[in-house]
Amino acid sequence: MANIIYIACSIDGFIAREDGDIDWLVNIPNKSNSDYGFEEFMNRIDGIIMGRKTFEKVLEINFWPYTKPVFVLSGTLKKLPEELEKKAEIVSGSPEDIIKRLNAKGIKNIYIDGGTTIRNFLKEGLIDEMIITTASIILGAGIPLFAGIGTEKKFAIEKTEQLNEYLVKIYYKKKDENADTLES
Amino acid sequence: MANIIYIACSIDGFIAREDGDIDWLVNIPNKSNSDYGFEEFMNRIDGIIMGRKTFEKVLEINFWPYTKPVFVLSGTLKKLPEELEKKAEIVSGSPEDIIKRLNAKGIKNIYIDGGTTIRNFLKEGLIDEMIITTASIILGAGIPLFAGIGTEKKFAIEKTEQLNEYLVKIYYKKKDENADTLES
Repeated sequence: MANIIYIACSIDGFIAREDGDIDWLVNIPNKSNSDYGFEEFMNRIDGIIMGRKTFEKVLEINFWPYTKPVFVLSGTLKKLPEELEKKAEIVSGSPEDIIKRLNAKGIKNIYIDGGTTIRNFLKEGLIDEMIITTASIILGAGIPLFAGIGTEKKFAIEKTEQLNEYLVKIYYKKKDENADTLES
Repeated sequence: MANIIYIACSIDGFIAREDGDIDWLVNIPNKSNSDYGFEEFMNRIDGIIMGRKTFEKVLEINFWPYTKPVFVLSGTLKKLPEELEKKAEIVSGSPEDIIKRLNAKGIKNIYIDGGTTIRNFLKEGLIDEMIITTASIILGAGIPLFAGIGTEKKFAIEKTEQLNEYLVKIYYKKKDENADTLES
């Protein structure tokens, strides 16, 4: 059972330009047409909790990339497009409550997506793993992944994979808070 | 001839806590007493350009860790402690001018240190390499490495080294701006 972040950011920690554009990421040369492990990751998870803004961004691409149920976190959205009826639903509540409800339905490994959502779940100590791909560009401005979440969280590095000349993927696992290392 | 950043930061991009503390970094377990490649790096460079704030932080540790001449960037400092007479000197001027002056003296591979100094040199396109070690902790607040420097800079990943369970070192090289990849 794990709540997992799977995201890409620039060296300076932005997940998109200020207007949401991710051209700097999608334009990275990819001759072998690799999915950089996305399908493997999708197979591992049971569902996705996604912030409303990220969901709206996904709708713009006119292609639904998820093979697992998506739970859109929103207190304002009333209904989803009809064609997503069996693919996505709206949820609201505290991060902890949502996780509990999903876990009770058998949705145990959960992909947590979207900047605000990631930060809210992190603050609550609800993130068990982070798979962060860094693209070798300094954007200089944009939408930050972490900003200052205001609370300290310890992780350990499980694995590092250099995907190509421009992408490196780091797998982090939550550090047991009672362990005798990385004390502050 | 290269201007090189060599620095450690948290997953969320902070080089120190708000008060300058780097306990989260120095307390990482290091049973084999590794210098994580610092001496090898020091051997490669000819000199160090360091911001005034970083210099004052180094003075606090009562141990001079540098085997190469240090140039302290400051428009306000008048003189350095006597015991550093042959080890460090004060410089001022634009990043480009300082580099030119040092290069003319045979100081060709230069370690650029300190948050503000790093950002100023980056903005001017004067950073050729970055060796960034990420510690697997989210600090939540602190002194940022990049903040929003406001300008885009492209790099390529030369090498990735996982040092231990808590540290990963990534070597970036400046990307030729005329190359046909990573276009924005």
